[in-house]
Amino acid sequence: MPGSAITRRAFATRLAALSAGPLLRLQPSTRPLHADGARVNAALAAFDAVGRTSGGINRVAYSDADLAGRGFALDLFRAAGLTPRIDAAGNIIARVEGTEPRLPPIVIGSHVDSVTDGGNFDGPVGSFGAIEVARSVNEQRLALRHPLEAVVWQNEEGGTIGSKLAIGALTGAELDTVARSGKTLREGVARVGGSVERLDQAVRARGSVHCYLELHIEQGGTLERTSRQIGTVTGIVGLRWLDVAVEGFANHAGTTPMDQRQDALLAAAKFTVAVNDLVRAETGRQVATVGRILASPNTRNVIPGRVDLTVDLRDLDPVVLDRFEARIRQAAAEIAKAGGTTFSVTQSVSSKPAMSDGRLMEAIDRSTASLGFSGTRLPSGAGHDAQEMAQIAPMAMIFVPSIGGISHSPREFTKPGDIANGVDVLLNAVVAADRL
Amino acid sequence: MPGSAITRRAFATRLAALSAGPLLRLQPSTRPLHADGARVNAALAAFDAVGRTSGGINRVAYSDADLAGRGFALDLFRAAGLTPRIDAAGNIIARVEGTEPRLPPIVIGSHVDSVTDGGNFDGPVGSFGAIEVARSVNEQRLALRHPLEAVVWQNEEGGTIGSKLAIGALTGAELDTVARSGKTLREGVARVGGSVERLDQAVRARGSVHCYLELHIEQGGTLERTSRQIGTVTGIVGLRWLDVAVEGFANHAGTTPMDQRQDALLAAAKFTVAVNDLVRAETGRQVATVGRILASPNTRNVIPGRVDLTVDLRDLDPVVLDRFEARIRQAAAEIAKAGGTTFSVTQSVSSKPAMSDGRLMEAIDRSTASLGFSGTRLPSGAGHDAQEMAQIAPMAMIFVPSIGGISHSPREFTKPGDIANGVDVLLNAVVAADRL
Repeated sequence: MPGSAITRRAFATRLAALSAGPLLRLQPSTRPLHADGARVNAALAAFDAVGRTSGGINRVAYSDADLAGRGFALDLFRAAGLTPRIDAAGNIIARVEGTEPRLPPIVIGSHVDSVTDGGNFDGPVGSFGAIEVARSVNEQRLALRHPLEAVVWQNEEGGTIGSKLAIGALTGAELDTVARSGKTLREGVARVGGSVERLDQAVRARGSVHCYLELHIEQGGTLERTSRQIGTVTGIVGLRWLDVAVEGFANHAGTTPMDQRQDALLAAAKFTVAVNDLVRAETGRQVATVGRILASPNTRNVIPGRVDLTVDLRDLDPVVLDRFEARIRQAAAEIAKAGGTTFSVTQSVSSKPAMSDGRLMEAIDRSTASLGFSGTRLPSGAGHDAQEMAQIAPMAMIFVPSIGGISHSPREFTKPGDIANGVDVLLNAVVAADRL
Repeated sequence: MPGSAITRRAFATRLAALSAGPLLRLQPSTRPLHADGARVNAALAAFDAVGRTSGGINRVAYSDADLAGRGFALDLFRAAGLTPRIDAAGNIIARVEGTEPRLPPIVIGSHVDSVTDGGNFDGPVGSFGAIEVARSVNEQRLALRHPLEAVVWQNEEGGTIGSKLAIGALTGAELDTVARSGKTLREGVARVGGSVERLDQAVRARGSVHCYLELHIEQGGTLERTSRQIGTVTGIVGLRWLDVAVEGFANHAGTTPMDQRQDALLAAAKFTVAVNDLVRAETGRQVATVGRILASPNTRNVIPGRVDLTVDLRDLDPVVLDRFEARIRQAAAEIAKAGGTTFSVTQSVSSKPAMSDGRLMEAIDRSTASLGFSGTRLPSGAGHDAQEMAQIAPMAMIFVPSIGGISHSPREFTKPGDIANGVDVLLNAVVAADRL
């Protein structure tokens, strides 16, 4: 909300503008608007076939299935009467002009890429919800002062890459990082239609965005457990991704006595148990996960000589993150010291906790109440593109319930009614934010 | 040694036969024979380029590199003046006829396939050594009574497949097992030039082989530590291969509280530590190794929903194998019982311990002594094709030292002089066995 709080004069100007033309249907704040949730759910149902494998949804960023998913999204933009473009970072953006074209845009969006063997809701709900809200603004001729931009960010699951690029937070060398698809980010940007040479054209400066709002499934079980329909997100946890390499010595599994081994997998197993133990030794919401492991040579009759694994550590408090990262490094050092192996621990990604904007949270709360939904405030344990946008603009998020708290899984599911509710809240929150 | 011990009459007949013709150079038992170890070492040096990658030697059975290795071996047979054939099981065999063609053959050999990221000595030393011995028998006109067959067994590292097929120990369904290369054994047999439809033609009945001798690197550190040049193998450990599947539940690494997880990788890590602890809790030579692990979805921000891993368990005593297999299954059951995951433990391979033949061991001991080498007797912690052949014929093995006891590793190494010694011992042991 650059331009600060609304003044009486601006409000009067706005009313005058509205009453002057045909864009008369902007509702009084007590009468909530409705989008067409059925369109969003129909799109999600059709999207379920894209990247579907026996293991779940596989639209890993930069894969063929991801490209198919982006193609689906482009078509959906067009079917909504919008004109999508792909920016230099590879993000898909469509814009609805406001009545005051020189104002910074309200940006809404999410992503359509998935984890390996994931579900169909993490990302697409907010992406298609944003498209529906932009369409509703057009169709219902809601004369917003600010331009409205609906965005599908590229490669969220690989570390909010598209939104990081959009705030200029990725440097040249980092673009050579290899993504889950096996392609570098540099190759990925090109593959999704961006241009690495023109990345600066995709960067949004601090103050150039009025606010950022994102609808998303909760991916946890709080809303379902407490029987709430809408969550107003108070903030997004900070995250540390650690790459751990364990070096031992590959030798014959039959001829090497137990006391003469340098077994990298045994050391990695001890480390995995230690990470779990230490993070649970303290009360709090911190979580740590060893999600990925690769042993070498990974043959049943050879003692593993090397293991690569990852740690995902999250908390809302940067001090807590620092403390646990130090303890994890200490655990690695102690296992290495016990003999036979060496550990190297590298931080590959670090994201700061991102706090939501107070007035945007109030706008979501009020929209929820005006629509007659039950709501609550809660933090997000998952990372989102919103955490990047929070660095350059006021940010808030809207959560809808995940059945069983399940996400990043083929069993991920959100009820169509809850999705429609979330889209309605997003629409009303956009209108409310437009007045800020 | 079907036909039992040599009789005075047979010995006299043999002497008469020898003195009658031009095959006069058979040495008296006190004058040792020599093969040309330099030829074996030259072949090994050239072979080092076949399947060599940055990670080590990769001639995994049925891979392109394995086929190249087999082609190299075929050429070596031919260069030695031998005529190799490929039997229906895909094993390469060349035969030198004896003076008594109806006697069962003496079989010598080893393999040329490797583990992933292995070395150049495990297998090729004994294979090329056998070719050299057959060549020396021809070149030195050593009139053996028995035919001599030099064999390169296919797919030793995948579970002594070629030698199992040669004794009829693999049934139809087992041929559908997927080997390390990704191909089934059925496909593998075809790929190496065998014929699944005619497998029975490759089967050797009990009593149809006079004896089996195999030269091999020790793959352990006993000979080097005790400064012995030759090892006479007393027996080969029995082996159990267990396939362990751990089922948990894949969920989001950021939003799932630590106390609500069903983390398959954490359970697999606890199991890996438990296997190591339990096998070391008792004195003895038993070894157990978790060598292979595959997590799913294996993504850094997802709690692993499933892990597949392997256990390799070995000992010379079947009772000890039974006891530790039961304890490993118990450890799996206890971790599963603690909650969140289920374990399934399947025995994929079981090989019985195989004891060497006493008279063949004496023949090796005497050959070693007559050549002036230091020797010792020791068990083999590694499996070998010899363990299969022991089921149908008297068997013994000759070990040469492995530097640092290292094997199944790119750092695997045996000195050329030690290899030449081993080939000489094999030649003299063959001649001695021919008299049994």
